[in-house]
Amino acid sequence: MDPRVNEHARIAVDHSTGVETGDDVLVQAPPEAMDLVVALHEVIGERDATAMHVSHSSRAGRAFERAIDPEAYTLPEHQLAAMEAADVAINIRASANTKGSADVDPEVTARTREVEKPIQEEMMETTWVITQHPAPGNAQEAEMSTEAYADFVYDAVNKDWEAQRAFHENMVEILEDADEVHVVSGDTTDVSMSVAGMIPGNDYGEYNLPGGEAYTAPVPDSVEREVLFDKPVLTLGRELEDVYLRFEGGEVVDHAAAKNEDVLTSVLETDAGARRLGELGIGMNRDIDRFTYNTLFDEKMGDTIHLAIGRAIDWTVPDDRPFNDSAVHLNMIVDMSEDSFIEVDGEVVQRDGTFGFEE
Amino acid sequence: MDPRVNEHARIAVDHSTGVETGDDVLVQAPPEAMDLVVALHEVIGERDATAMHVSHSSRAGRAFERAIDPEAYTLPEHQLAAMEAADVAINIRASANTKGSADVDPEVTARTREVEKPIQEEMMETTWVITQHPAPGNAQEAEMSTEAYADFVYDAVNKDWEAQRAFHENMVEILEDADEVHVVSGDTTDVSMSVAGMIPGNDYGEYNLPGGEAYTAPVPDSVEREVLFDKPVLTLGRELEDVYLRFEGGEVVDHAAAKNEDVLTSVLETDAGARRLGELGIGMNRDIDRFTYNTLFDEKMGDTIHLAIGRAIDWTVPDDRPFNDSAVHLNMIVDMSEDSFIEVDGEVVQRDGTFGFEE
Repeated sequence: MDPRVNEHARIAVDHSTGVETGDDVLVQAPPEAMDLVVALHEVIGERDATAMHVSHSSRAGRAFERAIDPEAYTLPEHQLAAMEAADVAINIRASANTKGSADVDPEVTARTREVEKPIQEEMMETTWVITQHPAPGNAQEAEMSTEAYADFVYDAVNKDWEAQRAFHENMVEILEDADEVHVVSGDTTDVSMSVAGMIPGNDYGEYNLPGGEAYTAPVPDSVEREVLFDKPVLTLGRELEDVYLRFEGGEVVDHAAAKNEDVLTSVLETDAGARRLGELGIGMNRDIDRFTYNTLFDEKMGDTIHLAIGRAIDWTVPDDRPFNDSAVHLNMIVDMSEDSFIEVDGEVVQRDGTFGFEE
Repeated sequence: MDPRVNEHARIAVDHSTGVETGDDVLVQAPPEAMDLVVALHEVIGERDATAMHVSHSSRAGRAFERAIDPEAYTLPEHQLAAMEAADVAINIRASANTKGSADVDPEVTARTREVEKPIQEEMMETTWVITQHPAPGNAQEAEMSTEAYADFVYDAVNKDWEAQRAFHENMVEILEDADEVHVVSGDTTDVSMSVAGMIPGNDYGEYNLPGGEAYTAPVPDSVEREVLFDKPVLTLGRELEDVYLRFEGGEVVDHAAAKNEDVLTSVLETDAGARRLGELGIGMNRDIDRFTYNTLFDEKMGDTIHLAIGRAIDWTVPDDRPFNDSAVHLNMIVDMSEDSFIEVDGEVVQRDGTFGFEE
């Protein structure tokens, strides 16, 4: 087996989820990820924990969702019981065909997700991680050869995460004491917001593998001026290009997109929170050096920032600060590698992708 | 997809386990059986039941069992919880390599089976079936091409089970009122036993798919004379050839085998019940027309009988009749297609493979 698969498994088990003796580990993975599943079984066995592989195949899921009467669908009690009994959940994505459910009615998928929500909530009670095994469908989506995509994934995932954590921590510390953040890129993005009193997070490969960002919550009413997101935005199975947002008093007052603007409009109209920002993230994983149409990687791309419209991340907002609630959480990315800077409280902390603390 | 896979799935869901609306169906299957798993998801969906695919891969199992400290291994609570919550369990066998665990210490496998016994016991509380998906490793074991093996499996499995049930029932009725059964084949097998008061069973594809036998329990002390089993006997990962047993007062008093006689000796020495018969079966699935080194098929081969040394099948022995208990249950087969007959209470009921009720 490719030794990088074994390394990936070790990181997921030891770094991300810290599996201990006697832990019951639930591995959720499609058949396309069997190599990683096998490698995980080896490491889980070495830790004297137990393993259960629940297979989430898109072929089986498609067959099932096309067959059911969505109104008659009931919660799979066996799936819930397994998750309730699990101490750790390792969730692996891998696809032979990312369009494998293209002929499933999206309303049926929405219904099954709604019915299965307690399983998702129960997963949040475990120690969990989401990661990616390189499979041909994901490589195709990224417009890469399967081999080059595997290199890309392992470069991003199989890192010295303690060193990476320390690198992120420089930016976390800046955000911790910050009030005003000002992001400028070319002549298309010039946006400012307060992050005063919010709690920045360091994403170093715990819940998401790869990790690779420092993030916080903007004060909902504080966002001003405009952003052009120059990377594609993926939502509801559609690709939006050149999304433009203009803010006044924290609210989106003007928007546009070069492609699928109607989708953007409907997302913004979901609820009041969907027109405000819930997250500011600084992408810091420089081994993610290209856009691969996979948010798990894209939002951590080095030398980018992302803003999410919609719901804030719970732990970034203390109880006494305003929390932006919404059914939406949509990440959108701005390239900061050229003709760009990030200013915090009047001081430039990053210029053209290079942080001040690197100089 | 091969339409025979869909037919197999329909039989497993509707005939074997009778899945109903709202049932939680646990599908235990290796990745080699994905086509059948997909087809099962379609049928389970059509019945408005729920599905969960727990993947039992021999590669993952091997990696795990080679890594664990068997003494530290604990019951996988998530696996047990899923089985407890399941209404129906569909267990599929399929292998890319039937020797895939050849480098696992058998004592570790024995230990994990022992620890996981409560899961197996819990499965018995569900409505369960065991079946086979044709995979290259199983075809190789059967010394067949993968394509011819698939034909063999589907001929044996995708049957009109109601018609097959009626066919078996003729033999079940004969056994129901029987006292003395006398089996003769060539000049090597001449064995008699009483089945008086025992309850014969009709195996028509419920717990085992394929089904294909009428079976009952011999009265333990009643077995006399000798048998030469002219099909291979598989036990403890070894193949025994030309197993010979001589009975007096129900007990094996002499034994031999042309190959691996020492294995036979150690099986017979397991406990007192291992030297007596627990089952007499009449193979009646004539689409199983060859030995494939797979008991799920071999014991139902048309025009054969089998005898099992060791434990009787619980429901074949009423409370007031003697029950042969043992840790062993080893099936051994005699070809009855030529120069052979079965006599019940002095009347020939089958000669050279043809039953009296067929004439």
